[in-house]
Amino acid sequence: MKIEVVTIGDELLLGFTIDTNGAHLARELSQYGVTVARRTSVGDGGEEIAAAVGEALDRTGAVITTGGLGPTSDDRTKPSISALFGRAMYLDESIVESLRQRWKVRGWPGDLPESNKQQALIPSGATILENRHGSAPGIWLEDERGRWVAMLPGVPREMRGMFADALLPRIRARLHGVPTVVVSRTIRTTSISESALSDRIRNLQDLDFEGLELAYLPGWEGVDLRLTARGVTAQDADERFARVGGALMAVAGDHVYGEGAADLAVSVLVALRAAGKKIAVGESCTGGMLGARLTAVAGSSDVVLGGVIAYHNDVKVRQLGVSERTLAEHGAVSEETAREMASGVRSLLGSAVGVGITGIAGPDGGTPDKPVGTVCIAADVDGVVKSFRVSMVGDRHEVRQRSAQATLNLVRRMLAGTA
Amino acid sequence: MKIEVVTIGDELLLGFTIDTNGAHLARELSQYGVTVARRTSVGDGGEEIAAAVGEALDRTGAVITTGGLGPTSDDRTKPSISALFGRAMYLDESIVESLRQRWKVRGWPGDLPESNKQQALIPSGATILENRHGSAPGIWLEDERGRWVAMLPGVPREMRGMFADALLPRIRARLHGVPTVVVSRTIRTTSISESALSDRIRNLQDLDFEGLELAYLPGWEGVDLRLTARGVTAQDADERFARVGGALMAVAGDHVYGEGAADLAVSVLVALRAAGKKIAVGESCTGGMLGARLTAVAGSSDVVLGGVIAYHNDVKVRQLGVSERTLAEHGAVSEETAREMASGVRSLLGSAVGVGITGIAGPDGGTPDKPVGTVCIAADVDGVVKSFRVSMVGDRHEVRQRSAQATLNLVRRMLAGTA
Repeated sequence: MKIEVVTIGDELLLGFTIDTNGAHLARELSQYGVTVARRTSVGDGGEEIAAAVGEALDRTGAVITTGGLGPTSDDRTKPSISALFGRAMYLDESIVESLRQRWKVRGWPGDLPESNKQQALIPSGATILENRHGSAPGIWLEDERGRWVAMLPGVPREMRGMFADALLPRIRARLHGVPTVVVSRTIRTTSISESALSDRIRNLQDLDFEGLELAYLPGWEGVDLRLTARGVTAQDADERFARVGGALMAVAGDHVYGEGAADLAVSVLVALRAAGKKIAVGESCTGGMLGARLTAVAGSSDVVLGGVIAYHNDVKVRQLGVSERTLAEHGAVSEETAREMASGVRSLLGSAVGVGITGIAGPDGGTPDKPVGTVCIAADVDGVVKSFRVSMVGDRHEVRQRSAQATLNLVRRMLAGTA
Repeated sequence: MKIEVVTIGDELLLGFTIDTNGAHLARELSQYGVTVARRTSVGDGGEEIAAAVGEALDRTGAVITTGGLGPTSDDRTKPSISALFGRAMYLDESIVESLRQRWKVRGWPGDLPESNKQQALIPSGATILENRHGSAPGIWLEDERGRWVAMLPGVPREMRGMFADALLPRIRARLHGVPTVVVSRTIRTTSISESALSDRIRNLQDLDFEGLELAYLPGWEGVDLRLTARGVTAQDADERFARVGGALMAVAGDHVYGEGAADLAVSVLVALRAAGKKIAVGESCTGGMLGARLTAVAGSSDVVLGGVIAYHNDVKVRQLGVSERTLAEHGAVSEETAREMASGVRSLLGSAVGVGITGIAGPDGGTPDKPVGTVCIAADVDGVVKSFRVSMVGDRHEVRQRSAQATLNLVRRMLAGTA
């Protein structure tokens, strides 16, 4: 099955909002062999919406929209698509009542605002998709030829919930007996460049890529290698992945930290748990980003004690015990300082593992010796300290992201005994 | 001028990558009155690329693509658009040479990989857009009717640099004498719901919105109110904004924390600087996210000392001085604990301002008394402590983001004397 996704909102075309809904739908649908053939973003105007949805219907007969279902005057998805299907709209009193209940339960002041009743307008003949995560109901509208449009809200949390609860089951019910799928498998690497990887892989002369596409996806986490098998059975895909995936992992070696959507932070938490060790972080240039990343993982509290954000040098000295002499002789951005931060936070919080990150994230603060992007990273595992200095590419945000990732990778390798 | 943006890559359709390039281009172009009429994402296939770019050219005659210019076999943007324009490709030796130099300067091992030479293939008659931030050059291709396609790389940092350096000046040169613009002004509010805002604004009976569109944009930072004026002169737009903007800000009151792309973290840093005060953070459920947010701002080091990530209760007690009795009587997630964290980190690091955040981000850990999303927030400014307990909506990530935002808002209001 092929589907098109149309995301709606002036904020998308003006660039005020980054479209994450399209990516989420694509990721979910591809698991069931449903291909998102194209994604389009249009503004809030009724004519624009009708044009984009109409063209998408002509190409695939199956369209998911997100956005434009809210209570305000710029929400025109329902009327414009109703008109495209030649349907009138009616006010669904049961939805008005449930909106009113929701308002009351939440303890919000006054009665349901008039504007919210717009959310209860439904195209005739439509199926309502229940919204358990917000107020705007979704809509499934289908014509006599079986062509359909599913309208989901734009707020990502509501969209995701409604998709999983109400839309995905409807789509899956239409997939009976689909023989072939599109399957992807991703191998995640870090600390190696796209072209270096590409050359290693090109040297695998005998490797048979037949029926597989290989894509290189570089980002701040590293370079992902994605293998895609199209139009095959699930079993065929597995065989092809087994044939090629092992060879790719072998040439990428210790740069591989996981597969699929693996998060290096999760790998490190798992390794810590297996080793019975706890971690504490000492962060300067990343300012808490590594701590935030580790604790973003639900259940991380069994191995993450916490840490110290030592942004000012006084905090490095007083809390983490970095010596004044080290700072004077080597500077705050030095492997020596990073090592003392790692050991200092480890001893302060009483963990087996401590890390230290100090660097120049930019845009200012660089020197000829230590240009912007210079980052020193250390880890202390049970008293054994390793460190390195690296030159990161990218802007301030990317330098910080890459620094947290490189620190996690050092811990991963030390725990695995390969660093 | 109207432009369409086509972002290219299987990873976009499969949802592995979130498209930030489209939003960036839209934001930049709208400042010059250039409207992004539509955005389309297609896969890496040559035919898909040619179809989407061809349709976009038919609608607007002006298209920017991103992606598919890299050194690997899945990079088919140049050949497919060359074919669409009926142009052959040639190998540009000067680009090969500069790629070779770049390789050498970086100290990468061996000679330039063969695969990288693909980046030097140029459609005949094209103008090369220099890439100062990476290896793939961009391309400007124009036909005899003046219709054009600009091809930019997909890596966001390279795309942004090339757009600013090489493409935006070309586009601006075509805008001579454009009389009207699309201008937006955004008012940022927080800690108030979309419908409550909408009702307050609907009560402004006498307000004349003529020539302005108002959009409500809810997100974890709060609800943005965006006013857009289309097809008017810059002066007219200013007059309309002045007429309506002031009234909107008045009804939103203390919920307004800034305009445009204002970051609440920046507002707080500015207020701290003006007051000559420094800040330290004590974070439990946010795990460093607030520190990361404050230090994401370049130059924050003059007012941010650092902080303590007190994820484990031992760290709350030993580092921040939270009393065992408070933890036993009120629990780790309580206003009492948050207050002791705020005062504790303030005294530990010697700052004027300290904050404490403790909550249940979920998905587990909720109780009937303290369900998932319960967060207690406190700030200590010069010994005066304020705190509140709030019930956040959203998943773990959103609860943490909203918690950091709400903490910043408390500090902002205390520094402004309105809390």
